[in-house]
Amino acid sequence: MFRLIIGNKNTSSWSLRPWLILAMLDEPFIEVLIRLDQPDTKEKILSVNPAGKVPVLIDGHVKIWDSLAICEYLNECFPGAQLWPEDPAERAHARSLAAEMHAGFAALRQHLPMDVCGRYPREDSNLQVDRDIARIIAVWEELRAKHISDGPFLFGRFGIVDAMFAPVASRFVTYDIALPPMSQAWVDHLLGTKAMQRWISEAAAEVAHAEPPH
Amino acid sequence: MFRLIIGNKNTSSWSLRPWLILAMLDEPFIEVLIRLDQPDTKEKILSVNPAGKVPVLIDGHVKIWDSLAICEYLNECFPGAQLWPEDPAERAHARSLAAEMHAGFAALRQHLPMDVCGRYPREDSNLQVDRDIARIIAVWEELRAKHISDGPFLFGRFGIVDAMFAPVASRFVTYDIALPPMSQAWVDHLLGTKAMQRWISEAAAEVAHAEPPH
Repeated sequence: MFRLIIGNKNTSSWSLRPWLILAMLDEPFIEVLIRLDQPDTKEKILSVNPAGKVPVLIDGHVKIWDSLAICEYLNECFPGAQLWPEDPAERAHARSLAAEMHAGFAALRQHLPMDVCGRYPREDSNLQVDRDIARIIAVWEELRAKHISDGPFLFGRFGIVDAMFAPVASRFVTYDIALPPMSQAWVDHLLGTKAMQRWISEAAAEVAHAEPPH
Repeated sequence: MFRLIIGNKNTSSWSLRPWLILAMLDEPFIEVLIRLDQPDTKEKILSVNPAGKVPVLIDGHVKIWDSLAICEYLNECFPGAQLWPEDPAERAHARSLAAEMHAGFAALRQHLPMDVCGRYPREDSNLQVDRDIARIIAVWEELRAKHISDGPFLFGRFGIVDAMFAPVASRFVTYDIALPPMSQAWVDHLLGTKAMQRWISEAAAEVAHAEPPH
């Protein structure tokens, strides 16, 4: 059985991505949560991953770290799930978007960190953050306009691109970012899935029981 | 024929990666270079890529941006080249390393930017940069120790992981970073390939003919 090592549900945006894919696949897996920002966090993570990062997926003797590499691995494990679009051109487009999210949107990440249970309507204005938000909305609108009749997710059926953008969906709720209707409908649908509802309620439980940081 | 849109050869580390793969495949392609840091750079890039980044690969009606997504696309186009290792566990490992490079090593990138023709022996000390260098050397040593009899590249034969780390190889020369023998041998071999020699000489020509920035 897969073992997935993740960080806190309320804040670890990287962890959410592969977790969501496993949960959407309804694939049983052992979840190991390493609480972040504790005195022994670094040591615990390094004991499973020399790169010092979560998430990590362990499948027998195979250990995969980094959220995007885990997504590619799960795509190979579950070809029938079509986690990437089947059409090569659409798959290339999907991979471009996933990679753009993976290495980009630095301003959004820095200024609007994921905080699943927090509610902090955005009041500041920052040109770089505005550009990141505008770019993301443009991507979502284009995808939804194209795939509206294929299903409720970005490319119609659920896939890696939905998982990669899931933390952004959560951020847009936290910071009360106004969205056009098609993008808002995707956010609502994604956050309403059983899998995301579970993640959100577990994040809430985590926050409710958190000890103050050391 | 593929069209690859790239930035300056001396400094665009992202551009080097897919360019190197096409060059190592000996695949003919049309190269379009957009000079960075010019008054019209942003506009030129946006006209080919709404994400506002180079490199971009254009293959007929398919447009792929982001270096890692282009690598995945080329892997699908040239299955015989085994740009990822054939073994699923090794492939997962290779993808983890490529993704780690894709989204990580922020300190190294910031403090030791790629400058193919520059020579600036490192004099400062920065703990985060030291950690990035140590992690990269550990990765290279482990791979070379394991694959020394399979060939001169990181996994034996040339692949995406070599391309992803190629800008780091160039940086380690620029900043005169001391390496253990196996890592140094990989750097020397990679930089000695016909493809890298061409990139380096074209970077030198670019620097020699550069107008002062506006």
